[in-house]
Amino acid sequence: MAAFPQQRVSIITLGVTDREASTRFYSDVLGFTPFMRDEITMFDMGGMVLGLWERGKLQADVGLMGNTCPPGACPNFALAYNARSEAEVDEIFARLMAEGVKVAVEPHKASWGGYSGYFVDPDGHAWEVAFNPYWPISEDGKLDLPVGEKT
Amino acid sequence: MAAFPQQRVSIITLGVTDREASTRFYSDVLGFTPFMRDEITMFDMGGMVLGLWERGKLQADVGLMGNTCPPGACPNFALAYNARSEAEVDEIFARLMAEGVKVAVEPHKASWGGYSGYFVDPDGHAWEVAFNPYWPISEDGKLDLPVGEKT
Repeated sequence: MAAFPQQRVSIITLGVTDREASTRFYSDVLGFTPFMRDEITMFDMGGMVLGLWERGKLQADVGLMGNTCPPGACPNFALAYNARSEAEVDEIFARLMAEGVKVAVEPHKASWGGYSGYFVDPDGHAWEVAFNPYWPISEDGKLDLPVGEKT
Repeated sequence: MAAFPQQRVSIITLGVTDREASTRFYSDVLGFTPFMRDEITMFDMGGMVLGLWERGKLQADVGLMGNTCPPGACPNFALAYNARSEAEVDEIFARLMAEGVKVAVEPHKASWGGYSGYFVDPDGHAWEVAFNPYWPISEDGKLDLPVGEKT
């Protein structure tokens, strides 16, 4: 049984060295407006999110850093699939584990108020599966994101 | 002046080691249906594309491989912004270059029939800006992708 109920991606998070500098680049040079700049810089790309996060924090969240990933091959980005409930996150991980997929972080209550885990694809690309109670999901899978600052 | 006319991302391409194995993972385990498996495996994620491409081919396309990128830091994924015309690609690169952005590959006629170039963000994350005459773009920026095989 397929792990994901819908064919979509909810978030692309890029690991960055200097988040302020990267936020300026994506805002001022490329012209994107963030809806959030607190902890992670986030842009609404039309019902999906582009995020900028300090690389070390991203790697810690993915559970692959230091001596747990090969030197030079620690993740510098992550994709996310947002589920519609905590139960759906658990169902997805149950299917992934039944298929022998490598789980990097088992689903757990996250500090930001949601419920999240990570797995990796055959090349080590990281996927988060999360339930975010603050971001409703439309029927077609788009995120209904909060309207935030327009700096 | 902002480089991108719209706030969106058209394609996420992941560099992979064994494209057949990765295609099976994304199809059979995750449950995604590709609309193309020729040269690059592509999935329609709702008006945007998730692509799987051999890492060496991706790095060659991005113009950053071998001794042109730091060991262990060659790109293993790329984002793309699809423009509405070749002229728009040129306008975007003109704005990027006016801002001093590092251009990895100048816009040129691509072998697949489109027009494409690459720049990198402050962390070296690669962005393609391309005009693809086979993929119309709706007013809201979504790609109108061809219906392909449903294997």
